[in-house]
Amino acid sequence: MRIKVLAGWIVCFGGLAFSGTASADEPITPIPPAEGIDHARAELGKKLFFDPRFSMSGYISCNSCHNLSMGGSDNLKTSVGHNCQQGPINAPTVLNSSLNIFQFWDGRATDLKEQAGGPIANPGEMASSHTLVVDVLASIPGYVAEFRNAFDSQEIGIDQVTTAIAEFEKTLMTPGSRFDQWLQGDQQAITEHELAGYQLFKSSGCVACHNGKGVGGNSFQKMGLVRPYETNNQATGLINVTGRESDRFKFKVPVLRNVELTYPYFHDGEAETLSEAVDIMGRLQLGREFTGEEIDMIVAFLKTLTGDQPSFLLLTLPPSTDETPRPKPFGD
Amino acid sequence: MRIKVLAGWIVCFGGLAFSGTASADEPITPIPPAEGIDHARAELGKKLFFDPRFSMSGYISCNSCHNLSMGGSDNLKTSVGHNCQQGPINAPTVLNSSLNIFQFWDGRATDLKEQAGGPIANPGEMASSHTLVVDVLASIPGYVAEFRNAFDSQEIGIDQVTTAIAEFEKTLMTPGSRFDQWLQGDQQAITEHELAGYQLFKSSGCVACHNGKGVGGNSFQKMGLVRPYETNNQATGLINVTGRESDRFKFKVPVLRNVELTYPYFHDGEAETLSEAVDIMGRLQLGREFTGEEIDMIVAFLKTLTGDQPSFLLLTLPPSTDETPRPKPFGD
Repeated sequence: MRIKVLAGWIVCFGGLAFSGTASADEPITPIPPAEGIDHARAELGKKLFFDPRFSMSGYISCNSCHNLSMGGSDNLKTSVGHNCQQGPINAPTVLNSSLNIFQFWDGRATDLKEQAGGPIANPGEMASSHTLVVDVLASIPGYVAEFRNAFDSQEIGIDQVTTAIAEFEKTLMTPGSRFDQWLQGDQQAITEHELAGYQLFKSSGCVACHNGKGVGGNSFQKMGLVRPYETNNQATGLINVTGRESDRFKFKVPVLRNVELTYPYFHDGEAETLSEAVDIMGRLQLGREFTGEEIDMIVAFLKTLTGDQPSFLLLTLPPSTDETPRPKPFGD
Repeated sequence: MRIKVLAGWIVCFGGLAFSGTASADEPITPIPPAEGIDHARAELGKKLFFDPRFSMSGYISCNSCHNLSMGGSDNLKTSVGHNCQQGPINAPTVLNSSLNIFQFWDGRATDLKEQAGGPIANPGEMASSHTLVVDVLASIPGYVAEFRNAFDSQEIGIDQVTTAIAEFEKTLMTPGSRFDQWLQGDQQAITEHELAGYQLFKSSGCVACHNGKGVGGNSFQKMGLVRPYETNNQATGLINVTGRESDRFKFKVPVLRNVELTYPYFHDGEAETLSEAVDIMGRLQLGREFTGEEIDMIVAFLKTLTGDQPSFLLLTLPPSTDETPRPKPFGD
């Protein structure tokens, strides 16, 4: 079986497949380091990202569902919201999320700043309000000073809050993966088995959608292109934004960077393992049944996409004061 | 009023009160740095402390209720457990917790190691089991290697898990507070107002229970000693451990180190502010009504007890594998 597959590659890719030389023409390009960051805003945004006082409960922070110790995800099928409400959709990773053309699975936010305002006021997520969040922050001298420093203004508003969070999120790039090292010319950075997986990823058509810096994140595609995808999940996808029937069940193609860390997979989180996800993608999107060996190879390649994870010192959040509105973790 | 109070100090403390010289005889002594730490075990324990896979939900870690960005507490009256169950008691800070004579408000755990095993298997907290936690860890190669390194053994057991967590928790000392700097001879480290608060803290009797390195944590006392404490909280205190009627409503005196960060206060979390807590303690434990000015002074002193907060790099947790038991965030 393996020989047959290998033979296939030779036909498809000629010398390239076995030369081990990274080509400038590869459809996947290295993750760039974060650039042009406003550090004062990003440092403030980092605190906000970890602060559970953004939620009505005082218990849920951005990091709860986009845990930076776990690939920027929560590793749950769908997330846990206020009062343990079950979220409607799998939480996408925040890592490299600035590479997404739009934010959310259905693309309803134009950019990270617009996205950041969503979960705060969503009754099923943080269940707070933009007004309450601003009231909380304005009551905390440590935050007031940081906002003044970052925005050169006495006022704290939701616009500054989401700007700061987005600026922090832009720093969450993960360069340095073994695959990027290979792309940049280090032929030893990935094994032959992993390289074979990459070649199959290309030759079988995965790369048609999963390409670019993010290995995805730059287009919408129908889930269940060749064969229908069956799910109990109610999400309808891009039609939610465009109203066009042709956009029903189209979702943003997820970034595959760090995919080893961001299980489970798909918008409904129903694929528990990478093997399962590759198998289903092959059948439903490409009309192809990958063999177990082929799946192993592609999975091995996908695991080379794990880059340098965010690394910074644990924060101390500025304490509430007597004037800070108190959280309501139960009821409401 | 202030002059009257100051006059009282002169009577009580003579030259000491105004000399500004820290005495070796002070009833509060500086927080020592963590010593004798097994670093391999502490580093492993740090990961375990932040890992939500300890909970049935895959959502609750030790750090959820003992948030190291928020004074080692969750700043909630009582904590949020599995399925958003309301916890029965306020989560005490994990900072400096190795100074406690016993662990938990009722002292039912002898030490940090014994404590660490409790919440994992408590159906109202993490709702997992010691067996399940070990199964999860044993399925993750990153953990298997770290356990082998830390314990020189092929086996992972709950005994090693709780040993590692406790070893990490022993590192969570907070030396360096302004009050400790004053104790160590820096007369400028605290203001006259704060020093006056300390003297009142001593002369009014607070220090009878809140003393030593932790400014508490070393004895049990009845909540409502002079006048009864009214609460809807069901906790009965030390009687839960000893069975002695005389221990009813006796709770461990909490450590006051970093108390500015560990609001709300008391075993039921009903005192939202430090001012409220000092007022109630005065009336119920000392039979004394502090004036507003006296409360302000004591609160100012208490805020000098905030020490150097834990500082280390954000962790990346080793990912689950196809064999790792999956979390159940909803139901059960």
